[in-house]
Amino acid sequence: MANSIYRASILQSQLLFRPSLSNKHSVPKKSNLFCFASSQLSPIRSEVSFCTGTHLIPYPNKVEKGGEDAFFVSNFNGGVIAVADGVSGWAERNVDPALFSKELMANASSLVGDLEVNYDPRILIRKAHAATSSKGSATAIVAMLERNGTMKVASVGDCGLRVIRKGQIVFSTTPQEHYFDCPYQLSSELIGQTYLDAVDSSVELVQGDTIVMGSDGLFDNVFDREIISTLAIHSDVVDAAKALANLASNHSMDSRFESPYSLEARSKGFDVPIWKKILGMKLTGGKLDDITVIAGKVVTLPAAAS
Amino acid sequence: MANSIYRASILQSQLLFRPSLSNKHSVPKKSNLFCFASSQLSPIRSEVSFCTGTHLIPYPNKVEKGGEDAFFVSNFNGGVIAVADGVSGWAERNVDPALFSKELMANASSLVGDLEVNYDPRILIRKAHAATSSKGSATAIVAMLERNGTMKVASVGDCGLRVIRKGQIVFSTTPQEHYFDCPYQLSSELIGQTYLDAVDSSVELVQGDTIVMGSDGLFDNVFDREIISTLAIHSDVVDAAKALANLASNHSMDSRFESPYSLEARSKGFDVPIWKKILGMKLTGGKLDDITVIAGKVVTLPAAAS
Repeated sequence: MANSIYRASILQSQLLFRPSLSNKHSVPKKSNLFCFASSQLSPIRSEVSFCTGTHLIPYPNKVEKGGEDAFFVSNFNGGVIAVADGVSGWAERNVDPALFSKELMANASSLVGDLEVNYDPRILIRKAHAATSSKGSATAIVAMLERNGTMKVASVGDCGLRVIRKGQIVFSTTPQEHYFDCPYQLSSELIGQTYLDAVDSSVELVQGDTIVMGSDGLFDNVFDREIISTLAIHSDVVDAAKALANLASNHSMDSRFESPYSLEARSKGFDVPIWKKILGMKLTGGKLDDITVIAGKVVTLPAAAS
Repeated sequence: MANSIYRASILQSQLLFRPSLSNKHSVPKKSNLFCFASSQLSPIRSEVSFCTGTHLIPYPNKVEKGGEDAFFVSNFNGGVIAVADGVSGWAERNVDPALFSKELMANASSLVGDLEVNYDPRILIRKAHAATSSKGSATAIVAMLERNGTMKVASVGDCGLRVIRKGQIVFSTTPQEHYFDCPYQLSSELIGQTYLDAVDSSVELVQGDTIVMGSDGLFDNVFDREIISTLAIHSDVVDAAKALANLASNHSMDSRFESPYSLEARSKGFDVPIWKKILGMKLTGGKLDDITVIAGKVVTLPAAAS
């Protein structure tokens, strides 16, 4: 039983308060904006592609080396976006955790047009992983947009992706982990996961949809409702990516913020010591982390005259 | 930055506590079990299909008429499952809210093999909606499994679907609503939504995956973590569907339970009157509703000798 019959009058008043994301094409303003819609258009029917903005904020004490996240955007076909997150535990073994994630993304970037990959994100992960020789491990997510609107997604671990349409999240990936804070990960070691462990999904996108991809540094610190409200303010994808990364960064340093990460930790039984609990205290705070955000708008160019 | 390197020893100890869902085929025990794996096998390679169990618990005061949810399961191809939820507000206009949902599902069921539908759940919704002449409206979700493992899903409103693999949710639909308690809905009136508003996604399934589809009566009353823990106890899909429906029903009648519905309501600004808040009280409780659950296991028969 759903309670309410949908009545247009009510919907319309709702829409008055809901910023329209669907009819504004982003205007290129900054260097980290990538618009892929201006080439390879079919002369008959309009097709879609991504217009993306990116923003990366390294872990505070890793700013100099740029952190351990890596990403790429490509204008191949409708657009390819990907994020990898180097597993920091490798530092304890004197391995730079950034090497694996960065080589993985570099390899993936060079393989997007590979015939064997056949524009399949899971095969792209397989080939990029096989080509990566650095020691280490990383979580990874790849999304490939076809010009007909189909976005294929493959993900290993806890990077994530959301699709926002008319102010609502309509598609969302879910993280995979062995246990709390130990995500599925592609690895230089045989014991890690492979492309066979990737969750392989797809969703049909339409003009005006916004996608947000990120490392767990975003999703551990920012709630879905905050992603929606941030996109409502920033229709430009560069501004949106920056605003989301800054919001995640601010939350990550706020020890009193009830973050998605702290809620997850408490739900898994982690909390402050018992004497603090007796005093009414609880585990709160964001999660200091590398933060990568890719925001993408699905744009359609009008059909050219045939 | 993900903290922990995946180490097999830790994983294995984790797995000892994690019931394996992947290697047990369900044994048919009850009448509401549907196994689709025994026919139309390719002689060369093994293919997948659903083995499903269903359970429906009507709203307490609508038991006699069977409630306003409707569903069907079909063994066409790899299996088709669908749920529709009649919008109860029609009762205020002297229209039986069950008529639309039941006719919609009956029409959809008869159209699964239609050539124009072409095994596309969005087109199935379009044609079933067009064929429905009853007054009313309903939310609806349809999932169609192909024998190669691709499950296509189309959903309008707040029915839902989860895919559970190795004790984790790896795919999840997200509800669409105009505002709290007013979901997107297919309607007899022009003002409602259509197949064009359906979220259209797909996910690759593998043997051992479990899917749980339901009306909002399930997802408003049962958390995802409870779905996982229930499936861990009940590997038989009939038992799982019944257990999940019973759990939802129990929570729906528990005024102290902090349900997904009450959390959502509070996050949208609904709560107890101010004087109760001052006394430390808050809005809690499940949501009385029709509850439909379809649980499905992805099964593969061994490849027959060619």
